[in-house]
Amino acid sequence: MNNFIFSNPTKIIFGKGVENEVGNEAKKYRKVLLHYGGGSIKSSGLYERVVQSLQAAGVAFVELGGVKPNPLLSLVHEGIQLCRAQAVDLILAVGGGSVIDSAKAIAMGVPYQGDVWDFFTNKGRPQEALPVGVVLTIAAAGSESSDSTVITRSEGLLKRPCSSALIYPRFAFLNPELTYTLPPYQTACGVADITAHIIERYFTKTPQVDLTDRLCEATLKTMVNFGPRAVANPTDYEAHAEVMWAGCIAHNNLLGCGRVSDWGSHMIEHEISGIYDVAHGAGLAVVIPAWMKHVYREDLNRFVQFAVRVWGVDYAFGDSERIALEGIERLKQFYHAIGLPVSLHEMNVADDRLEEMARKATQNGSLGNFKKLYEQDVLKILQLAL
Amino acid sequence: MNNFIFSNPTKIIFGKGVENEVGNEAKKYRKVLLHYGGGSIKSSGLYERVVQSLQAAGVAFVELGGVKPNPLLSLVHEGIQLCRAQAVDLILAVGGGSVIDSAKAIAMGVPYQGDVWDFFTNKGRPQEALPVGVVLTIAAAGSESSDSTVITRSEGLLKRPCSSALIYPRFAFLNPELTYTLPPYQTACGVADITAHIIERYFTKTPQVDLTDRLCEATLKTMVNFGPRAVANPTDYEAHAEVMWAGCIAHNNLLGCGRVSDWGSHMIEHEISGIYDVAHGAGLAVVIPAWMKHVYREDLNRFVQFAVRVWGVDYAFGDSERIALEGIERLKQFYHAIGLPVSLHEMNVADDRLEEMARKATQNGSLGNFKKLYEQDVLKILQLAL
Repeated sequence: MNNFIFSNPTKIIFGKGVENEVGNEAKKYRKVLLHYGGGSIKSSGLYERVVQSLQAAGVAFVELGGVKPNPLLSLVHEGIQLCRAQAVDLILAVGGGSVIDSAKAIAMGVPYQGDVWDFFTNKGRPQEALPVGVVLTIAAAGSESSDSTVITRSEGLLKRPCSSALIYPRFAFLNPELTYTLPPYQTACGVADITAHIIERYFTKTPQVDLTDRLCEATLKTMVNFGPRAVANPTDYEAHAEVMWAGCIAHNNLLGCGRVSDWGSHMIEHEISGIYDVAHGAGLAVVIPAWMKHVYREDLNRFVQFAVRVWGVDYAFGDSERIALEGIERLKQFYHAIGLPVSLHEMNVADDRLEEMARKATQNGSLGNFKKLYEQDVLKILQLAL
Repeated sequence: MNNFIFSNPTKIIFGKGVENEVGNEAKKYRKVLLHYGGGSIKSSGLYERVVQSLQAAGVAFVELGGVKPNPLLSLVHEGIQLCRAQAVDLILAVGGGSVIDSAKAIAMGVPYQGDVWDFFTNKGRPQEALPVGVVLTIAAAGSESSDSTVITRSEGLLKRPCSSALIYPRFAFLNPELTYTLPPYQTACGVADITAHIIERYFTKTPQVDLTDRLCEATLKTMVNFGPRAVANPTDYEAHAEVMWAGCIAHNNLLGCGRVSDWGSHMIEHEISGIYDVAHGAGLAVVIPAWMKHVYREDLNRFVQFAVRVWGVDYAFGDSERIALEGIERLKQFYHAIGLPVSLHEMNVADDRLEEMARKATQNGSLGNFKKLYEQDVLKILQLAL
C-alpha cells in the first residue's frame, strides 16, 4: 500500500425528493449560476422544482443552459464571462457529468487571468475556484463527488481532463428518481462508465492493497447485479438507487486510496469520442475489454482474482490464463447484455483513423500505469476493439 | 435504502512517516493543545517528532497528558479550562480513541457555557466546537474520522456517547508504524472494536441495501484476513496498514449510509467497561456473539448472508438456522484465536451485577434497532455471554 491522502469534502444528500432542498444549501451564497444542458430538465419538471426551491430560499440566480455531451470549451468561456459580469459566487450544475464538468471548468476559469484551457494542457495550475453545487440527473460520470473535469475544444477535436482538489463539489443532491426518464441506452452507458471508474482503479501493480481491492469488487458486484435491472426497469427505485450510490463511490477516490490507478482506457476512449459521436460509456464498453486482452499477462493473478471474485468464475479448474480470459469475456457479455456495443464496428467507427487516434492519444507521452501504453500499444488495443 | 446525508470532512494523511508533517496542517492555527495519554508516546519517540514538527512550523502549543482508557469527564473539564485560559484554537490528539474522544469533548466544551456533560445526557446540543486534529497510535475506535465521542463520569460510573458533525476531526495522520509498539492483546482489542463497528451497521432491518452490505462484507473480510496477522506480527507493515485503514472506514459512516444501524452491543458493553476494568474491544468480543445468538431469528437470511459471504460457510447444505449459527460460531472462534476473551467469566466478570447492568443500560429506554432490546433482553444477552 502506498502512502496517500484522502479528503473528499462533498456533502452528499441522497434519496427521494431531496432536490427540493437545494435552496437550503445554496442560500449562503449571494448569486447562483444555474447551469444545465438541453430541455430535458424543463420537460421533466426538475427545472421548475429547483427554481422554486431557490426562490423559496431567497436565492438570486442567473442561467446558462446548452451544455452538450462532451462539453465544449466555448460554452465554458461564455459561462466565465457571465459569472464575472453577474458576480456569481456559486455554480449550480443541474444535470449529468457533462454539465458538472462544464460547471467545474467555469469555476476554475472565473478567478483566472489566462485561458482556462491552460489547466487542461498543463500550462497552468488553478489556485482558486468558485464553489460548485450539483443536482444530479444521470448516474455515470461520478463528477458529482470527484476532483476532475473533462472538456472538449472544438478546434482540433481535443478532449482533455483536468484534476484539482479545488473543484470537488461542495454539495451534491442525488435523487435516483431523477434518472427514471433516461432512455435505457443512456442508463446502460452510465453503468459502463461506473464500472470503468472502478476497473481503472482496480487494475494496479501496487502490491498489498487488500481492502481497496475488496471495496472495488464490492462496488462492481453491486453494478453487476443492479445495472441490468436498472436498464430493464426505468422506474425501479432500488435498482437506480444502488447504481447511483455506486456511481458516486466509484469515482470519489475512496477506491483509489494507496494504489496507482491506470486510466489508459479512459484516455483511449477520449480519442474516440473526441472524433466520433459516441457516448463515453459506450466507448468504454468497447475499449476496456480490448485493453484487458492486451494487458492481462502483465499480472495474470490480478485478472484471475477479477474473474473469480467479481464474476464467480470457478477457480477449481486451475488454468490461470483461461480463468483470466473468462473474466474478460464475462465483462464483455455483461456490456453486451445491457445493450451496449462491444466493438468499434458496432459504433460505426471504421478502421481508417485508428493510427490517428493512437498518435494523438500518446502525443504527450505514454498512457496508463498497469502497463505503459505507447502508440503501438494503443493501435493494437484499437485493432482488438474492431 | 433510506434517504441519507453523507459528509465526512476529515482529511486522512496515511502512510509511513506522515506524522512528521503534522506541523504543516497545524500551522494555520494560533495555539494548539497537545493532548495525549500516558508515557508511551514519549518512550516511543513520537512525542518528540510531533513537537519537532510543530516547532519547525512555528506552531505554539500547550500540553495536557494523562488521558486514561475510558476517558474521564474530570480531565475533560481540566482541558476546557486550559484551552480557555490559553486561547487554544486547535486540539491535537496524539493517541488512540480515548485521547481523541477526550479531545472532542474538550472541543465541544470550550465554547459552551454549561457543563459539557449536558451533551452526553441529551440536556443540550453543541452549537460550535474547536477544531480537532489527530495523530493516531491505535487502530481501533475509528474516532479519527468519526463524529462521536464516549466519555465516562466517575460519579455513578456512567459511560455515555455523544455525536455531532461539529467534532469530525479536521485532519488525521495515520501511520501504521506507530502501532508496532502495542502489546498484541491491545492490537487484538482494536481488531474486535473495528469488526464491531462494521457489525453494528451490517445488522439492519432496512431492506435493499446491497452496496453498503457488500462494502461492510469487504471491510470485514480484510479484518478477518489481516487482523490475526497484525496481532501475530507487531511489525508487519502491510497487515497493520490494512487494519488501520479498515478501522477508519469501519467508522467514518460510509458503511452506514442509507440504513438504520444497531449499536445495542456497544451500549451493553459500555455498561460492562463502565463498571469493570475491561478493554472496550474485549468486552465487544464477548457481547457481540451473545447478542447475535439472542437476535438472529429476527432476520435469519441476514445471518445466513453474513455466514456465507464473510465466513465462506457453504450455502449448499441448505439448513438456514445451522448456517446462521455457524457464522456466529466462526466470529467467536475468530475472536478467541486472536487471544480475546469470549465469555464474561474469562474477563473476570461474575454474574452478580448482570441485573444492575441490564437496568442501567435501559434506564433511558430500549437499546438497538435490529431488535429492540429491553431490560430482560439485555439480561438474557449478558447471561448468554457468561
